[in-house]
Amino acid sequence: MPSLVAKAREGDARSVARLISLVENGDPALPEVAAAMAPHAGRAQVIGLTGAPGVGKSTTTNVLVRALRERGDRVGVLAVDPSSPFTGGAILGDRIRMQDHSGDSGVYIRSMSSRGQLGGLSAATPQAVRVLEGAGCDVILVETVGVGQAEVEIASLADTTLVLLAPGMGDAIQAVKAGVLEIADVFVINKADRPGADATYRDIQGMLALGERGPGEWRPQVVRSVAAKGEGVDDVVAAIGKHRDWLEGTDKLRERREHRAATEISALALGTLRARMGDLSGGTALPDLAARVATGELDPYAAASALLAALGR
Amino acid sequence: MPSLVAKAREGDARSVARLISLVENGDPALPEVAAAMAPHAGRAQVIGLTGAPGVGKSTTTNVLVRALRERGDRVGVLAVDPSSPFTGGAILGDRIRMQDHSGDSGVYIRSMSSRGQLGGLSAATPQAVRVLEGAGCDVILVETVGVGQAEVEIASLADTTLVLLAPGMGDAIQAVKAGVLEIADVFVINKADRPGADATYRDIQGMLALGERGPGEWRPQVVRSVAAKGEGVDDVVAAIGKHRDWLEGTDKLRERREHRAATEISALALGTLRARMGDLSGGTALPDLAARVATGELDPYAAASALLAALGR
Repeated sequence: MPSLVAKAREGDARSVARLISLVENGDPALPEVAAAMAPHAGRAQVIGLTGAPGVGKSTTTNVLVRALRERGDRVGVLAVDPSSPFTGGAILGDRIRMQDHSGDSGVYIRSMSSRGQLGGLSAATPQAVRVLEGAGCDVILVETVGVGQAEVEIASLADTTLVLLAPGMGDAIQAVKAGVLEIADVFVINKADRPGADATYRDIQGMLALGERGPGEWRPQVVRSVAAKGEGVDDVVAAIGKHRDWLEGTDKLRERREHRAATEISALALGTLRARMGDLSGGTALPDLAARVATGELDPYAAASALLAALGR
Repeated sequence: MPSLVAKAREGDARSVARLISLVENGDPALPEVAAAMAPHAGRAQVIGLTGAPGVGKSTTTNVLVRALRERGDRVGVLAVDPSSPFTGGAILGDRIRMQDHSGDSGVYIRSMSSRGQLGGLSAATPQAVRVLEGAGCDVILVETVGVGQAEVEIASLADTTLVLLAPGMGDAIQAVKAGVLEIADVFVINKADRPGADATYRDIQGMLALGERGPGEWRPQVVRSVAAKGEGVDDVVAAIGKHRDWLEGTDKLRERREHRAATEISALALGTLRARMGDLSGGTALPDLAARVATGELDPYAAASALLAALGR
């Protein structure tokens, strides 16, 4: 293990891959890995990238990687699938993307699923980020599908969150419904050469104008792109840079990173407790309590109390 | 409280509304409400309805409600927003939908957010379902936006899960990526009068053909609809009925409901523990540990151990 960590620290791609596999599989050696990586915490800029299926997340990530490489950054990409124990689609996507950056030792691309990991992706993703930080990445892109709770969780792990939209994929009210207004630091209207792009732009700007913002607070940027043609990528990079400057000029970077650490710690602690719940046996085991709740013999609160009592707290 | 529960049991809409507000706000009286509702558990058929923004979830829910009312069912609708503390969009949606069913005492429509609730929506939604069951609903539609972890959680609360797709909103690989193949009992290809509907239909059927299924296992149905014109709704209702018959003919209904209860119980128990973590003070309080992890002084595993030790376990 120490030599694996040492090699990963030197940027050896195979060692990085093995460490992230350990993270994914919830390996018992993870605390040791985490302890070795801890001193390198906070080096990289972590960028979250989210949006509904079909808005062009993979393509955008791909062109962003290219742009960041051109300015000399070492780049890590984590494509996170919060819902599926399978990674079929993601792996296919990786292969396609890998081709674009094959032979470039300054890019590390990896898709992650949540199988096995104590605390789920909300614990596994920041651990993988730490591995990439330790391996010397300057920027880490965390790409995740969909909109919903998992996105909000993963967005909270990023320094800067990009929300991708595309014209004709749902109107402004839908965007509010999905909670993206709250998590977006930068809106990217991709496929901006399609009909409806101007309307989407106006809707987002209109909603941002309604939001109350104190002095010195960040106003989300809205940029347009056509990632498939490489158009607008410079604007996206500029918006990310502008947000980074704002984070560093205020106390927000520290706040966000402490929030990220708190999420990670509590996910690990709750994961441990959840595992212990599964290990209980006898009438207070979760399946037994659940059967009694399903038939109406017991209510869920009484069952939860019984469960906590059985855990000895 | 006992009279509120009694009135809700008689189907009084205002009392039902107040009880669901208690659920949403995590009211201290909830264990009492849960105990009163427990004997009525398992009466209603719970149908989950999910899909990306813009596929037509609200419209589909609306026409489904109409179809179920026509056959005499009492119907409850929970529009669940898993991501946002705001309910702006959802409330607007409610108003539009309410108009369609105003004056019909056999329909109860409510949007929910997760603010305040111990255990989040994975605890609050089944509790709201219990309130609606107790109030005599025969069918409860739980509508939720997006694809991702929250959807998978909410799908696990339903007897039958409908996944809505629309042509041109992302290809089949995206659907696999989002994990919907695993949670869908019925695929509804809405907006089926649009170009690409046949391709979407074939893609889904093709992927289902690839899936391995033992004898007696459910093969997800694929139906097409144009909800805005009321087309295909009978097919959706028929597919739901077919799945219900399968659930009742096997042991799956009991299994699903026990799984639902287990999810609810563990969410409540973990919510309690999470609240206790927030109450800790001194150097073992989560913010203090998080600050040390953010600077690299401590690793997250060591912090999680310290947190659990502080909780006395």
